[in-house]
Amino acid sequence: MSNKIGIVGCAGRMGRMLTEVIGRTDSCEVYGGTELPGSPNLGKDLGELAGIGAIGVNVGDDPLALFEACDVVIDFSVPEATLNHAKLAAKTGCSLVVGTTGMTHEQVAELEAATITTSIVFARNMSLGVNLLMSIVEQVAASLNEDYDIEVVEMHHRHKVDSPSGTALALGEAAASGRGVDLDKVADKVRDGIIGARKRGDIGFATLRGGDVVGDHSVIFAADGERIELGHRASNREVFARGAVKAANWLQGKENGFYDMRNVLGLK
Amino acid sequence: MSNKIGIVGCAGRMGRMLTEVIGRTDSCEVYGGTELPGSPNLGKDLGELAGIGAIGVNVGDDPLALFEACDVVIDFSVPEATLNHAKLAAKTGCSLVVGTTGMTHEQVAELEAATITTSIVFARNMSLGVNLLMSIVEQVAASLNEDYDIEVVEMHHRHKVDSPSGTALALGEAAASGRGVDLDKVADKVRDGIIGARKRGDIGFATLRGGDVVGDHSVIFAADGERIELGHRASNREVFARGAVKAANWLQGKENGFYDMRNVLGLK
Amino acid sequence: MSNKIGIVGCAGRMGRMLTEVIGRTDSCEVYGGTELPGSPNLGKDLGELAGIGAIGVNVGDDPLALFEACDVVIDFSVPEATLNHAKLAAKTGCSLVVGTTGMTHEQVAELEAATITTSIVFARNMSLGVNLLMSIVEQVAASLNEDYDIEVVEMHHRHKVDSPSGTALALGEAAASGRGVDLDKVADKVRDGIIGARKRGDIGFATLRGGDVVGDHSVIFAADGERIELGHRASNREVFARGAVKAANWLQGKENGFYDMRNVLGLK
Amino acid sequence: MSNKIGIVGCAGRMGRMLTEVIGRTDSCEVYGGTELPGSPNLGKDLGELAGIGAIGVNVGDDPLALFEACDVVIDFSVPEATLNHAKLAAKTGCSLVVGTTGMTHEQVAELEAATITTSIVFARNMSLGVNLLMSIVEQVAASLNEDYDIEVVEMHHRHKVDSPSGTALALGEAAASGRGVDLDKVADKVRDGIIGARKRGDIGFATLRGGDVVGDHSVIFAADGERIELGHRASNREVFARGAVKAANWLQGKENGFYDMRNVLGLK
Repeated sequence: MSNKIGIVGCAGRMGRMLTEVIGRTDSCEVYGGTELPGSPNLGKDLGELAGIGAIGVNVGDDPLALFEACDVVIDFSVPEATLNHAKLAAKTGCSLVVGTTGMTHEQVAELEAATITTSIVFARNMSLGVNLLMSIVEQVAASLNEDYDIEVVEMHHRHKVDSPSGTALALGEAAASGRGVDLDKVADKVRDGIIGARKRGDIGFATLRGGDVVGDHSVIFAADGERIELGHRASNREVFARGAVKAANWLQGKENGFYDMRNVLGLK
Repeated sequence: MSNKIGIVGCAGRMGRMLTEVIGRTDSCEVYGGTELPGSPNLGKDLGELAGIGAIGVNVGDDPLALFEACDVVIDFSVPEATLNHAKLAAKTGCSLVVGTTGMTHEQVAELEAATITTSIVFARNMSLGVNLLMSIVEQVAASLNEDYDIEVVEMHHRHKVDSPSGTALALGEAAASGRGVDLDKVADKVRDGIIGARKRGDIGFATLRGGDVVGDHSVIFAADGERIELGHRASNREVFARGAVKAANWLQGKENGFYDMRNVLGLK
Repeated sequence: MSNKIGIVGCAGRMGRMLTEVIGRTDSCEVYGGTELPGSPNLGKDLGELAGIGAIGVNVGDDPLALFEACDVVIDFSVPEATLNHAKLAAKTGCSLVVGTTGMTHEQVAELEAATITTSIVFARNMSLGVNLLMSIVEQVAASLNEDYDIEVVEMHHRHKVDSPSGTALALGEAAASGRGVDLDKVADKVRDGIIGARKRGDIGFATLRGGDVVGDHSVIFAADGERIELGHRASNREVFARGAVKAANWLQGKENGFYDMRNVLGLK
Repeated sequence: MSNKIGIVGCAGRMGRMLTEVIGRTDSCEVYGGTELPGSPNLGKDLGELAGIGAIGVNVGDDPLALFEACDVVIDFSVPEATLNHAKLAAKTGCSLVVGTTGMTHEQVAELEAATITTSIVFARNMSLGVNLLMSIVEQVAASLNEDYDIEVVEMHHRHKVDSPSGTALALGEAAASGRGVDLDKVADKVRDGIIGARKRGDIGFATLRGGDVVGDHSVIFAADGERIELGHRASNREVFARGAVKAANWLQGKENGFYDMRNVLGLK
């Protein structure tokens, strides 16, 4: 039976990409989508907005109705809106896939709280590649001792407002977890002036911003005489949409619970 | 009890580095070393050659005596000499660590044949980092389908005579093994002219040569929208000496058999 | 007065991008476009095809009429078609911008022959960044002696049929020119097996293929103790469209002649 | 006539490398060297310390005598010592080559003041490659407008105490100079937390620390659709020694003045 997927923010760049990806994926369908009341796109056909031709589904402005009608909703919006959607998911039992970036630890805890009555997949990065990278970073960090200095470097487009990126922090957490330490105690995010020698065991972060870079991440393990570099380059936001749709389909029939992409991908 | 290590080619660059590394490693000692008959270094103290001060061990020219006296011999020489050393190891029961590069499949089979009566560690690259990289390349290749094109690129100094490097081929074999295919059937080593579109499932190799680069290797998994890049840079040949000494110590008390660095490092 | 630009292949991916870029560039306009006779897009509005709304210009199938009506035509097609367009340019005096890839030396000579009666800009890569890179590669190659080994490495998507890329070859030519040698005599494009030590003065090429990579190029100058790496990454084909439109506008009022992007950009 | 070169700190790592490089360079010779009073190396032969065999020149502890005897002195020490050496150079007329890192703007001004009566070459990085990179960074920055975001990223070994490196700052200054702006007004060295979108025209810096990396630097120009990356990797400190010896020989017969490596290399 086809998985009924709803899209909040369906007329935006990511929303249209989701419509397109769902349109060419088996055993699921775009079942509804919303924009804010007053949006000029209300009533338009989601398929036409996505450039794939009409699909007979129009943009609405009632999220509750969307959650009641769908099996699962995909949400790449902003933290405040996402928390509201989590409440609707909890109330209706509709599953939720969250790719919203910039969520604080407290906000993630609120998301998790909603999973008493529903199932949610949340990930700071929805791409297969980044999630695979997290797994191997954790594993490599567990294999190497502190003779190997760990550094995380990322580059994103000039419009990104937070630093380091959520994905860079998640990679740092994977490294810290592999090494059995608490990232908050070893993270080294500012280097300016006479900073002294590198502290053994620290995990460093470096941030580059420029152009329209979708997202480059690299984790370096540097010792005397050798360096291991594990990197990922996203060239197209579609990888995030593909991951979200995969998560939406994976959620079918799952028990209530709070999952991440590594569960979806069978990486843990 | 201290592990008695012999070094063939002990006056060469790698031999001297081995003396230095053993000198600062616990529970092992340089017990002898050889050069070819007629070498100007015969009779000299290995420690003085290595710049760490006299250690009371002098350069000899009798490999058989070396294998009879030592627990394990380390060999970074040339394929023909290494096969001879393997025979001496088989005859005397002395263990052997082989870091010789450029060995053919047939020569490796001869090495393995010697392990009926002794134990040998053989690796195309002795560094911890490269062996760890092989493990994760195999694993990532197993996790991804053929939507991800695999490419191996390496750079070495201008004096290297073989291409691709043995390490690049070993990385390609790790990828092929993860994917469950035979590298010989999918390797793509020459691209010149009108070559047509890339064949799905191929594993490509690219070779760079220049300067004094010790050894850079990178394995790329490229799909629509994203790339994973897993790389290693050696900046100093000491990483190979450290790996060989680790292997020599690991061999103590091991059963007869043919091992590689991933056994030594607990990576398989 | 607005520059009247025609687009051959106006319904294709690059054609639609050109329409979009011209649409937001001052002092020029899309004045016509063609597709092959029988194309399903004949008669459609170029603006609608490009997703920028109708502009009142429809797809035709008569190249001669296009060249007669326009000030300049932009051509990203295939070599044979481009040679035909060059004849139309020569006949009508309409200028031509050629971004077609895979042109042989003979075909380029044919292009040049047409410039007795018209002006043509031809470049193997239309992006500002790559052309700037060519200039500095030439200059760096002129500054360094043959202690610095030169290597060119490129990666493109899996559909690319030629190797090395035209841009890689153009970078190699820039390096050879800076060094005062003939690329054909020093190019080293195949490395497989026992190839021996690198020959002093050679310029090496390495080719990677995979995923949807738009085009990465890097020129490495490697000596004992140091490497200079000069690279370019295109993340979006729009950089080629922007370059072509810049060339089309630069051609206004120029004398008959055969130009490249470095002329357009004031880089030579 | 052979150029008489003195080395301060001649028994240290860089001092011994200088002895070795001078030993194989035509038309110059090691004429003297100093260490601090009380050093265990006083009286030893500089050639034996460098591993090239005795050269008949012994380690002294009197810098004034060294400056009086030599044509030029090379100094890779610490800022305070270097300022003292500059006074000796001014007093004796002996030339000076300074590769000391970590000098403040004020300290550099003091160096320059000494050149009323002598000639000094000072550079934050003595390698040919880095100085060439500075020249092309300046030139590329002058060619591109602020649609191209400039980022400087560097990696050094774990013992380095200052951040960004002097070379990274010099590259940033080259970029700022090319663009006609003041680096102090556009440098962006700290990115942590919610930092907002990148400010147009800024020059960003990112610092990585780990292992024994000699020095990697990269300057990125990132625009919509493309990136230019201009990088340098030092794999061996010998490149700094070679640059210093080249500077020492270039200074022969030069007028009093304050020079940098770009003067020496004919890059400006």
